[in-house]
Amino acid sequence: MPLTQISLRKGTKTNAQKAAIMNELYRAMRETIDVPDDDKFMTISEFEPEDFVFGRHYMDIARSDDLLIIQLTISDTRPWEKKRALLRRIADGLEKNVGVRPEDIFVNLVETKLENWSLGHGIAQYVEKDTAA
Amino acid sequence: MPLTQISLRKGTKTNAQKAAIMNELYRAMRETIDVPDDDKFMTISEFEPEDFVFGRHYMDIARSDDLLIIQLTISDTRPWEKKRALLRRIADGLEKNVGVRPEDIFVNLVETKLENWSLGHGIAQYVEKDTAA
Amino acid sequence: MPLTQISLRKGTKTNAQKAAIMNELYRAMRETIDVPDDDKFMTISEFEPEDFVFGRHYMDIARSDDLLIIQLTISDTRPWEKKRALLRRIADGLEKNVGVRPEDIFVNLVETKLENWSLGHGIAQYVEKDTAA
Repeated sequence: MPLTQISLRKGTKTNAQKAAIMNELYRAMRETIDVPDDDKFMTISEFEPEDFVFGRHYMDIARSDDLLIIQLTISDTRPWEKKRALLRRIADGLEKNVGVRPEDIFVNLVETKLENWSLGHGIAQYVEKDTAA
Repeated sequence: MPLTQISLRKGTKTNAQKAAIMNELYRAMRETIDVPDDDKFMTISEFEPEDFVFGRHYMDIARSDDLLIIQLTISDTRPWEKKRALLRRIADGLEKNVGVRPEDIFVNLVETKLENWSLGHGIAQYVEKDTAA
Repeated sequence: MPLTQISLRKGTKTNAQKAAIMNELYRAMRETIDVPDDDKFMTISEFEPEDFVFGRHYMDIARSDDLLIIQLTISDTRPWEKKRALLRRIADGLEKNVGVRPEDIFVNLVETKLENWSLGHGIAQYVEKDTAA
């Protein structure tokens, strides 16, 4: 159920790099927060420079135009330890397997209730039996 | 106050279909979660195929390129029964009146406090009297 | 850490106006909710008219095509008084310094836990010591 929304500056990533980024995010979620097979819902939005503004040195982290702003909407069912592992795993995977600088990985988690997801058919599958179709 | 953000694959919907989708979402909110007349704030973002990735069989639901990912930010004032009715009504209306397959309707609710909305003038209208202008 | 996502109708703002809007939002956050220097992460998405739909008179507020829909994701650490000041300061600043009509300023706050932010390096800086690089 995670919904992953990635924002980046236009032209900083090839299609192959974008696919690799999404794959790494998916693997990170699979390995750290028990996301099931094929539970992968992700969008990438590219922005012109004037529409993508970020602090280039906030917290003494040297960000570049390659910055990824990753917003993950997930259920509020994970303890901090799992979320902490997710954040580390995302940064490790993106660095090692896609070559993203760790300084350029901004992640924000938005948590919502388990009942707040319908994966299809108008059913909230995580809390109700599928009585549709 | 709901803020409705719809994501879809570029070219899969005509303008008429997009208008019909937004109209159905609005009607669903009006009928199930007491959204007032004209309380309709919605955006549609279209994505290239490489920027719009989804599980094509997660939970044994056969999704197609026509998938709609609908994120609704609403106040956290509704009991589960109302949210459940909203999810069903969205799927029913989109299927019957717009022809969207129920498998292609992904909905995520994000809940926020009633005080977290300003509809204009810098006032949080749901919790303060309008003392502006 | 606030993540600011601004939606507007395509062509209604120049690049200079967009920069001024983001600057005012940043100043408002600096002055009312204790946002540190350079903590500025913002995107602007422009929409075609058919993809940007809003109630033109909801709550008797006369909105125009110049509407700004501003979604701010922030930590859930501020009391209502600070959020109230933020909403007012945003509207005041945008009106006085950028010329945005107060009727055209829609703001929604989404609150998330302090632990739900990584500003880089896979560390949740607000709750852990930076043990990375």
